[in-house]
Amino acid sequence: MLDIKVEMTKTPKELPSADNPLKFGTIFTDHMFIMNYEEGKGWINPRVVPYQPISLEPSAMVFHYGQEMFEGLKAYKTEDGRTLLFRPNKNAERTNRTNRRICIPEIPIEDFVQAVKTVVKIDEAWIPTKPGTSLYIRPFIIATDPFLGVRPSHSYMFMIILSPVGPYYPEGLNPVKIWIEDEYVRAVKGGIGEAKTGGNYVASLRSQVKAHDEGYSQVMWLDGVDRKYIEEVGAMNIFFKINGTLITPLLTGSILPGVTRDSVIQVCKEWGLAVEERRISIDEIYEAYQNGTLEEVFGTGTAAVISPVGGLRWGDQIMQVQDGGIGPVSQKLYDTLTGIQLGRIEDTHNWTVEV
Amino acid sequence: MLDIKVEMTKTPKELPSADNPLKFGTIFTDHMFIMNYEEGKGWINPRVVPYQPISLEPSAMVFHYGQEMFEGLKAYKTEDGRTLLFRPNKNAERTNRTNRRICIPEIPIEDFVQAVKTVVKIDEAWIPTKPGTSLYIRPFIIATDPFLGVRPSHSYMFMIILSPVGPYYPEGLNPVKIWIEDEYVRAVKGGIGEAKTGGNYVASLRSQVKAHDEGYSQVMWLDGVDRKYIEEVGAMNIFFKINGTLITPLLTGSILPGVTRDSVIQVCKEWGLAVEERRISIDEIYEAYQNGTLEEVFGTGTAAVISPVGGLRWGDQIMQVQDGGIGPVSQKLYDTLTGIQLGRIEDTHNWTVEV
Ligand SMILES: Cc1ncc(COP(=O)(O)O)c(C=O)c1O
Ligand SMILES: Cc1ncc(COP(=O)(O)O)c(C=O)c1O
Repeated sequence: MLDIKVEMTKTPKELPSADNPLKFGTIFTDHMFIMNYEEGKGWINPRVVPYQPISLEPSAMVFHYGQEMFEGLKAYKTEDGRTLLFRPNKNAERTNRTNRRICIPEIPIEDFVQAVKTVVKIDEAWIPTKPGTSLYIRPFIIATDPFLGVRPSHSYMFMIILSPVGPYYPEGLNPVKIWIEDEYVRAVKGGIGEAKTGGNYVASLRSQVKAHDEGYSQVMWLDGVDRKYIEEVGAMNIFFKINGTLITPLLTGSILPGVTRDSVIQVCKEWGLAVEERRISIDEIYEAYQNGTLEEVFGTGTAAVISPVGGLRWGDQIMQVQDGGIGPVSQKLYDTLTGIQLGRIEDTHNWTVEV
Repeated sequence: MLDIKVEMTKTPKELPSADNPLKFGTIFTDHMFIMNYEEGKGWINPRVVPYQPISLEPSAMVFHYGQEMFEGLKAYKTEDGRTLLFRPNKNAERTNRTNRRICIPEIPIEDFVQAVKTVVKIDEAWIPTKPGTSLYIRPFIIATDPFLGVRPSHSYMFMIILSPVGPYYPEGLNPVKIWIEDEYVRAVKGGIGEAKTGGNYVASLRSQVKAHDEGYSQVMWLDGVDRKYIEEVGAMNIFFKINGTLITPLLTGSILPGVTRDSVIQVCKEWGLAVEERRISIDEIYEAYQNGTLEEVFGTGTAAVISPVGGLRWGDQIMQVQDGGIGPVSQKLYDTLTGIQLGRIEDTHNWTVEV
């Protein structure tokens, strides 16, 4: 158990009004959690303080060598006023998996969850309640040694900030159009692709700009070796329903092991759907599209939960899926997962954790 | 021409004494350069201010999505008291190459060089003069938008900090032992390997820790596709002299185009040495080692200029080079390049730039 000191703000901000669209990731609550790491002392000084800028030496290693990691999860307000988190232990576990890969000291799972709960409780009034809204929780760690030279830092800051968010896609559950990237690569086996660290996201920017310019909202990545196996989409894992079977890329080290991905696999198996985790090539997708067996495509991720995919563009080929609409499995998964998250559907897996 | 405002420190620090060993990257001078970027305004407000911490929102994009880049070059004091930079235009050009890859707005070459010259001039007294010492110059750019979500930032800070440094290897020009990594990958074609951005360095940490634990000071990377072609070493490019010919990996997008690498190629060609830029596999190196034609191996980089390699470890194989000593080409290159940098040898290429 962490002994978390709390310093409440003396100047609380005004809560966003109920009809504020809450553009994703732009508004932050009154408080944040901070804990420091110092070599020889471990993780120390856990505290909740007013949301405020942080001051770092210009030589702080995070600015130079990218030793940083983040997580993302959400808190939801139920109709009867409870606050629920969705599988926060999974984010804590993934934090440590990321940390091991990039040489950041691990954080005990229960301390991570306690820190999340504590700061969410304090800013509970910020959790929005309109359909599709939630409180986005961003834990992150940065390397703070004032040192130029490539080695793991000896000091870190672990912080949690909170942001009330509207639906990820302002239009609601709407099919997205996806650009299949065949020039740039996001990550490769043996690299840092399965870690949730800045280096994977910066690698994606240029493709994303290109895709946006062409009218596509997301980029789908192919593997860096054979340049033909599907990896994942910007900030989502990806599923294909082909001829009745759900197929999603295997976790081979270059893609993020998504919490939503894991939940979708479990739920679909319980529904009796065939689910395969395996390598799947873009040629196989294209073939299924051509012979009419590509039934549904959807992305999974904390931000949008389920994102139906209405179209894919691969070079000169444009594949329309579900006539550009929402498929039945996508819709049912969205309703089920958000139902569990909002406490409307019985949580048979014990996935939700009350704050 | 930038109109650079200067605010001098009122509390100058004590200069390091002449027998301070100047551990690399730990001491910083009295001033730093800052310039901001704002969308619609471009790069604005260039200034030199006292060296001080910077204050950022916890949501600043650099902490989350790794949109950051850096450069590294050095200023040297000549025996007749002049201050020389070595090919600063190359660092300015590489900055923009990095920036294009990771969607940071470019900086005009002449502005970059002017900024470097200005801040170096102001802290000229900090340039150490003992053999092997210099003033390390670290320009870097960070994304500052307070925003959670993956897209290029709309605001940035470009900064230059300065650090007086001793020889990179405290023991002087001493052969290093190199660990050839066959499990992890640093970068892959199509990725960000040729950009000087944090994501490449964080990817290297785990291997580096492993190598250190085994008594090796540096890691040599193999390519991410075939896992057998030589890429580069930690913070150096790499050269092999096999049977009289110098061979260095071709720039194929996954390795940094080093300024020292480029200088070495030019100088060696002028000396009449055969130089090949091409793919070279670890098997070819091993074969050359076995048949006695692996004559020299050395790394090239700003920090150590030339690093003779005395030994390589590849799985269970240990290859000793030059009986673990310094080869004649390595020594001659070191003497020549540092000679030019220190103004002792005629600079026929116009590589040095006086501050
Ligand atoms: C690269 C990437 N892949 C997949 C996901 C989906 O993971 P999760 O379902 O845990 O949100 C995310 C977002 O978190 C991501 O950033
Ligand atoms: C990854 C990497 N490769 C090579 C180099 C050598 O480049 P340069 O000679 O420009 O210093 C560096 C250092 O700058 C580096 O970080």
